[in-house]
Amino acid sequence: MSELWYTEKQTDNYGITMKVKRTLHTEQTEFQYLEMAETEEWGNMLFLDGMVMTSQRDEFVYHEMVAHVPLFTHPNPENVLVVGGGDGGVIREILKHPSVKKATLAEIDGKVIEYSKIHLPEIAGELENPRVEVKVGDGFMHIAESEQEYDVIMVDSTEPVGPAVNLFTKGFYAGISKALKEDGIFVAQCDNPWFKADLIRQVQADVKEIFPITRLYTANIPTYPSGLWCFTIGSKKYDPLAVEDSRFFDIETKYYTKELHKACFALPKFVQELT
Amino acid sequence: MSELWYTEKQTDNYGITMKVKRTLHTEQTEFQYLEMAETEEWGNMLFLDGMVMTSQRDEFVYHEMVAHVPLFTHPNPENVLVVGGGDGGVIREILKHPSVKKATLAEIDGKVIEYSKIHLPEIAGELENPRVEVKVGDGFMHIAESEQEYDVIMVDSTEPVGPAVNLFTKGFYAGISKALKEDGIFVAQCDNPWFKADLIRQVQADVKEIFPITRLYTANIPTYPSGLWCFTIGSKKYDPLAVEDSRFFDIETKYYTKELHKACFALPKFVQELT
Repeated sequence: MSELWYTEKQTDNYGITMKVKRTLHTEQTEFQYLEMAETEEWGNMLFLDGMVMTSQRDEFVYHEMVAHVPLFTHPNPENVLVVGGGDGGVIREILKHPSVKKATLAEIDGKVIEYSKIHLPEIAGELENPRVEVKVGDGFMHIAESEQEYDVIMVDSTEPVGPAVNLFTKGFYAGISKALKEDGIFVAQCDNPWFKADLIRQVQADVKEIFPITRLYTANIPTYPSGLWCFTIGSKKYDPLAVEDSRFFDIETKYYTKELHKACFALPKFVQELT
Repeated sequence: MSELWYTEKQTDNYGITMKVKRTLHTEQTEFQYLEMAETEEWGNMLFLDGMVMTSQRDEFVYHEMVAHVPLFTHPNPENVLVVGGGDGGVIREILKHPSVKKATLAEIDGKVIEYSKIHLPEIAGELENPRVEVKVGDGFMHIAESEQEYDVIMVDSTEPVGPAVNLFTKGFYAGISKALKEDGIFVAQCDNPWFKADLIRQVQADVKEIFPITRLYTANIPTYPSGLWCFTIGSKKYDPLAVEDSRFFDIETKYYTKELHKACFALPKFVQELT
C-alpha cells in the first residue's frame, strides 16, 4: 500500500510533512478549504486553506497560552470574547477560570465548529457548556457592534489571508478597544518571527498606537512554522509582567505555568527588535 | 527542471522538508555520513547521518545558547573545552568572552572541520584563532585523560547514535566532573521534549547524581525536531539562576540576552516534569 504524506509548505522553500492514516473530511466551505485528517504523529488535525490549525497532540500549547496569559493578568475576568477559535480549544481553557461568567465565541465559519465537534471532541467539548454562547458570524462585525462590554478579547484567527484579513488592521484593534471595558485586555496570535517578521512589527506598531501597554510573548508550537509562535497583548490598565504572585491559582495545564507567564515575555534578541 | 527537496524524518511519521539549490559535498567519513547542501530557505546546511546539524540562517541560536549560558554563569571562565562542535560555531561564541584564554575543540571527525571551513565559513572562521586549539580525536578519551583542568565543558554532539553514543552515559558525566575544576560547569545538548522525553529524563537523572546543581533550559531552533531544543547544565558551585545583574556585559548576539539567560529555565509544564 502506498503511504499518504501531507506536506504544509510553510514558505515556498520549506515545510513540514506528516504521515496520514486517513482523511476524515474535506470541504470547500463558504469561507475556506477545510480538511480534517488522522495523522500518525499528531493525532487528528484540522487544516484551513492548507495550513495547520491544530492537532490533538500539541493543541494544548496554543490554547493555554492564548487564554491564561490575559486571564491571569486581569484581576477579575467575567465576560470574555473569542474571535475565531471555532475548534473550541480557547473556550475550554477560559472555562478553567471560575471568575468567568460568560464566554462568547464569534466564529465566521460554522463548518469549523461542526467538524471540530466530530473529529476533535477533546478540544471542542466545552462549546456546549452553559457558560458559553456560540455566535456563528463575522467577528469583525460583532466587535464593531460591541461597546465597553468585555473584560478580555482573544483573537484566535487564521493568518491574514482569506476570512481573517480584516483581523490584522488598525481599524480592528480600535474596534477591540471600544468593545473592551476601561480596564480590558486583548490578545491576538501574530505568526512567527522567522518568516513573518514584518507582520509582527506591523501588529506591534498598530497595537501600540491604541493600547498603553503592548507586549509580545512566545510559545513553542511544533506543528506551526518555525516552532516559535508569537502573541501580541494590548492592555488598557493591567501589565502581564506585574501580576503579583498571590494572584496565580492552580489550574490543570500541560504548558502554562506561573513562571512561564512572565518568562514567555523574555524574547530572543532578534524578536525583541520587532517590538 | 525537477526540484530537489531534502526531507529529514524527525520521527517515522513526521519530518521537515526543504528545497535544495545544490548539493555541495557528500562523503562517508570514518565516523558518519556527511552532507553539505545549499538550501533556498536556510542557506548552507550540514547534515550528519541524515540529521540537520546546522544551517547558516539559524545556527546562531544553538551556538549562542550553548556557549553564553554557562560562560555568564561562571565568574571567570579561562579554560574551556568543547566536545564535538566541529563546525566551530560554539568556539566562535566562546571567544566573545575576553576572560577566556584558551578554548579547546575535541572533535572526532576531522572531515566535519574541513568541510565546515569550506562551506560554513561564518561559522567555522574562528577555528584559526590563536586562542583556539583544535584536537581531532575522541572527546570521550580526551575527557578521561583530563583532571581539574577546565572551567567550562560544552558537549556539542550529535544524537546518541553513531559516534556520540558514549557521550550520553553516566560514565561520561563522571569523567566530565573529574576534568572540571572544583567550581566547573558543563552543558550538553539533550534533544527535544516532544519526541525524546525519555532521553531528557535519563540525562537529567544521571547528571543530578554527579552535579549538585542540575538544570534544564530550552531554545527555539526551527530546523531541529519540534523547534524546541533542550540543554542540560551541571554545575559544581555556580547557579545559572543566581547570576547577579552586574555580572552581565554586552556581547554581540542575535538570540541570547541577559533576560533570556534566566527566562530560558522557565519550562513548559510537560518539560518541567522531565527534570
